[in-house]
Amino acid sequence: MDIATIIGLVAAFGLIIGSILTGGSLTSFLDVPSMMIVVGGTFGVGLISFPMARVLSAMKVAINVFRYEVPDISEQNTQIIEFADTARKEGILSLEGSLSSIEDDFMKRGVQLLVDGIEPEKIEDLMYDELEGMETRHGTGAQIFETFASSAPALGLVGTLIGLVNMLQNMEDPSAIGPAMAVALLTTFYGALLANVVFTPVAGKLRIRHQEELQAKALVVKGLMGIARGENPRILAQQLEVELPPSQRSDNG
Amino acid sequence: MDIATIIGLVAAFGLIIGSILTGGSLTSFLDVPSMMIVVGGTFGVGLISFPMARVLSAMKVAINVFRYEVPDISEQNTQIIEFADTARKEGILSLEGSLSSIEDDFMKRGVQLLVDGIEPEKIEDLMYDELEGMETRHGTGAQIFETFASSAPALGLVGTLIGLVNMLQNMEDPSAIGPAMAVALLTTFYGALLANVVFTPVAGKLRIRHQEELQAKALVVKGLMGIARGENPRILAQQLEVELPPSQRSDNG
Amino acid sequence: MDIATIIGLVAAFGLIIGSILTGGSLTSFLDVPSMMIVVGGTFGVGLISFPMARVLSAMKVAINVFRYEVPDISEQNTQIIEFADTARKEGILSLEGSLSSIEDDFMKRGVQLLVDGIEPEKIEDLMYDELEGMETRHGTGAQIFETFASSAPALGLVGTLIGLVNMLQNMEDPSAIGPAMAVALLTTFYGALLANVVFTPVAGKLRIRHQEELQAKALVVKGLMGIARGENPRILAQQLEVELPPSQRSDNG
Amino acid sequence: MDIATIIGLVAAFGLIIGSILTGGSLTSFLDVPSMMIVVGGTFGVGLISFPMARVLSAMKVAINVFRYEVPDISEQNTQIIEFADTARKEGILSLEGSLSSIEDDFMKRGVQLLVDGIEPEKIEDLMYDELEGMETRHGTGAQIFETFASSAPALGLVGTLIGLVNMLQNMEDPSAIGPAMAVALLTTFYGALLANVVFTPVAGKLRIRHQEELQAKALVVKGLMGIARGENPRILAQQLEVELPPSQRSDNG
Amino acid sequence: MDIATIIGLVAAFGLIIGSILTGGSLTSFLDVPSMMIVVGGTFGVGLISFPMARVLSAMKVAINVFRYEVPDISEQNTQIIEFADTARKEGILSLEGSLSSIEDDFMKRGVQLLVDGIEPEKIEDLMYDELEGMETRHGTGAQIFETFASSAPALGLVGTLIGLVNMLQNMEDPSAIGPAMAVALLTTFYGALLANVVFTPVAGKLRIRHQEELQAKALVVKGLMGIARGENPRILAQQLEVELPPSQRSDNG
Repeated sequence: MDIATIIGLVAAFGLIIGSILTGGSLTSFLDVPSMMIVVGGTFGVGLISFPMARVLSAMKVAINVFRYEVPDISEQNTQIIEFADTARKEGILSLEGSLSSIEDDFMKRGVQLLVDGIEPEKIEDLMYDELEGMETRHGTGAQIFETFASSAPALGLVGTLIGLVNMLQNMEDPSAIGPAMAVALLTTFYGALLANVVFTPVAGKLRIRHQEELQAKALVVKGLMGIARGENPRILAQQLEVELPPSQRSDNG
Repeated sequence: MDIATIIGLVAAFGLIIGSILTGGSLTSFLDVPSMMIVVGGTFGVGLISFPMARVLSAMKVAINVFRYEVPDISEQNTQIIEFADTARKEGILSLEGSLSSIEDDFMKRGVQLLVDGIEPEKIEDLMYDELEGMETRHGTGAQIFETFASSAPALGLVGTLIGLVNMLQNMEDPSAIGPAMAVALLTTFYGALLANVVFTPVAGKLRIRHQEELQAKALVVKGLMGIARGENPRILAQQLEVELPPSQRSDNG
Repeated sequence: MDIATIIGLVAAFGLIIGSILTGGSLTSFLDVPSMMIVVGGTFGVGLISFPMARVLSAMKVAINVFRYEVPDISEQNTQIIEFADTARKEGILSLEGSLSSIEDDFMKRGVQLLVDGIEPEKIEDLMYDELEGMETRHGTGAQIFETFASSAPALGLVGTLIGLVNMLQNMEDPSAIGPAMAVALLTTFYGALLANVVFTPVAGKLRIRHQEELQAKALVVKGLMGIARGENPRILAQQLEVELPPSQRSDNG
Repeated sequence: MDIATIIGLVAAFGLIIGSILTGGSLTSFLDVPSMMIVVGGTFGVGLISFPMARVLSAMKVAINVFRYEVPDISEQNTQIIEFADTARKEGILSLEGSLSSIEDDFMKRGVQLLVDGIEPEKIEDLMYDELEGMETRHGTGAQIFETFASSAPALGLVGTLIGLVNMLQNMEDPSAIGPAMAVALLTTFYGALLANVVFTPVAGKLRIRHQEELQAKALVVKGLMGIARGENPRILAQQLEVELPPSQRSDNG
Repeated sequence: MDIATIIGLVAAFGLIIGSILTGGSLTSFLDVPSMMIVVGGTFGVGLISFPMARVLSAMKVAINVFRYEVPDISEQNTQIIEFADTARKEGILSLEGSLSSIEDDFMKRGVQLLVDGIEPEKIEDLMYDELEGMETRHGTGAQIFETFASSAPALGLVGTLIGLVNMLQNMEDPSAIGPAMAVALLTTFYGALLANVVFTPVAGKLRIRHQEELQAKALVVKGLMGIARGENPRILAQQLEVELPPSQRSDNG
């Protein structure tokens, strides 16, 4: 569970609603047609820009922004070092027995390839190709939210222009000008809000989550290659930990 | 047929028209001279920026945004694996008989080169050079729409400035100011609409389609090189599938 | 002669002038001091940004946007294949006789190096270094127009601010405010027009022309290296044509 | 202690406060709800965009902008050259005695690896991997401030739109319009101020500090590799100093 | 002496002053507090963004924009070819006598290394590392002016917002609104002027000068490596000249 996202959203929206209530009422800021043009239009632009399957999967991916667990790299490293130990003592084939205990599919496929006796270079190529495919697929999520983030203010502008043109065509009643202009500005308000408080930061967090995942998986490849080379488990442990912050390393001596 | 593009366009334009009708009439938003300066000017800028042949071909390419079939990579992979099987059992020359059954020109040329006995490295170079040429040519489509997307709002601004200057020169009749300003804003409205709801998303989808096509073709090169090396078809299948999402892979064991 | 550029310019300026005439008179849009600040200022910024020799040569290069002939790659390829044929049958030295028939200086220097018996690797290095020098020199043309394109609206803004400040200092006569503001907006109008309808698209076409030229020259290097290696002319022809669109290739079998 | 940062902040804020006092009073520019929406909202967006641990560590890192000591590269070089001397005369193992005198943890770990007899290529890989991890971790600090810098004006705009809509809904009292609009503009003012005078320049300095640190550490790797190769200390000194400005080099002959 | 920079500055400022005088008086455009907030604030932001030493050295570097001599590459090449000739006939050691005649420090250090008998690969590494250090140091000059260029309009906006808020708080006297707004706009005017007519173009010229210098120095490395390899001076001349425009090459046959 990623509490930061929730705290961030609650804080930002809370402050904005508070600011609205300080100077007026919330109802002046709710206008269903304005919302529809910004939200619906942004979603429509998303469908023109991306294949439908990707837009739908981005929605699913976005939920991960809330329920997410940071990959536990030290646990993953411990498991790899154990495999390296076993493989050194009893041979790589002996890892077959541990296959069922591996939860992560990516690592499982890699160990399976090791056990199958495929040459290490080919395993490395296969695993990096799989990572690359993952990078393209998962990266689209952030990309779609970035597209939403640039479309929302544009549709806000379109909505405001519609409101302004309508207002300018009917200026007989001066007292109606202010409220009409207020409504015209609402789409710009929605666009700025959605883009800057929802879409851009969600895209940012998706991108970071995605990087963390790829880094963890790259360590799996590094570890399995070390096992295939028959690397000394102590040195392999250093190689796997060296990118972590010093505080998270197990060997401090 | 790419339904997402059509749904997206219908949804976005539907919501915009709905929003116009809520506050006024559609006729206030139709102004032929304003349309001409934005649409015609954008097209003119396209012709100054790009050679004519490319602008015309971009128009043709844009239609592909609507009628498009995702390349079926698993079918393509199946065919390559079959070739690998045949080549392993009966020799690469035996692929000559299958040449007529290959629909994709790119793959056909590659298999022809294999059958001709050209060295694999040269085949790889030739095929990658062909891909590169394809990348340049097809990429121009998206590039032209991106140019349109940045020109349209600029011409919208030019049009609005013309309207404003004309209006400011004739301010005797105060009641005419509002409608004159409304008309002046229409070019900005058209520019924002075309750029954000048509040109930018169409460029986005062209770019994605183009990437999918190049990825499919790169797999063909990878496959034919595997055949040339006499790669084990089972391993080759893994190499070709590893970039696909797990759900689309044939081997799950 | 590049007709697209001329059609584009005529169309864009025609539509803009038409739009001006629809709502007012052309004379309201002509203001010599405003033009001087935008055009002269932009040119001044160009001189601060770039060495004088480059600014002047960019002016010359810009004319190429109008009178330009696409390099005829198939003709160039035919000549290279002929040379490959001759070199294979009669030796590379026999190319000396053809030197005088080569029009393109770059190719001529390359063939001269071949005939001089310089090692192929050195020839390749020399030719690529020459291409790199060309890339830097010719690329500046587009770069200068891009600088113009970003300076013109900035000077337009500066001009409009001058007009606004002057207007705001003298607001005794309300009837003078409109026309004064109209004049103030003219520099923004000129800046937007020059940047978006002239400088940016001219920079775009210069860049594309430049790329086409470099690609044609890179094929010359590829071809001469093939000759130096004694490559089979039929295969060399394929290597040279493979980046062209299928319709322009000579071998379709 | 980095005095430039403090002088810069004092100068910029001093001039801004001076400018406020010239034309009005400071109290017109203090509005707690406006500050809360900009500052709180920006921080909220930071929490949605980044994992909480990183946002908190960025706060700590930002303090380094004030208390910072430029890494003393010539002192570091002197130490490395001494080690090279000792290693050449008494063998690499003799460096064990100097381990306790090394203050920098990164260099200490490197020398430890040398003394442990790990192969130089592995040491180089380990140290570069550690540098890469450091690059990712420390780079986030600047990245978060850049995110703040782009969020603050966006939240300023949102706040101003809220103020404008509220004002436009209540235009009965003309004398209240001016002050209401003044308050509405304050969030834009805060956003512009924070983004341009605090967040962007702090991000800039963090990035430069970070680069200087990485360059110093890369010299450590270069030096230790020279020691492992048994490089002549005089030449090693030149290799370490060559990137410094001539004035900071010890050998001028 | 770089006349283009001076002509450009005189032309741009001349036209701007002319434009001011056409519609008003220069005194309306001079406001010391407005200047201080833009100029002082921009400098303050520079100090927060960069270490003080770099900001001060950027000031010195900026003067080079005016007094600059294009590196005379053909003279430099002539000297290198002479050295190649001497080295070929009398051995590399014989270059020791020419050391005192070399004006450029970079070339001098390179020839010294050659004479010292250091291996060519190490000399190449040393010289490229020195070039890299130079690139980082000298590149900061342009970077600081680019930072100034983006800060100046931002501080202009901050100043204008201060003026607007002050004006909106005191709207009792309608005749004071115009002049107050005029003054408020002056900071935007200064910011736009400094950014677009001074900082951005100066950064541009610094960057180009810097590139020319690096290219000249890279030719020195290329030349000394040719001497170390004992390259034929005629071929070396070609290698050094090939990146120059054809008109500046000595060998046209």
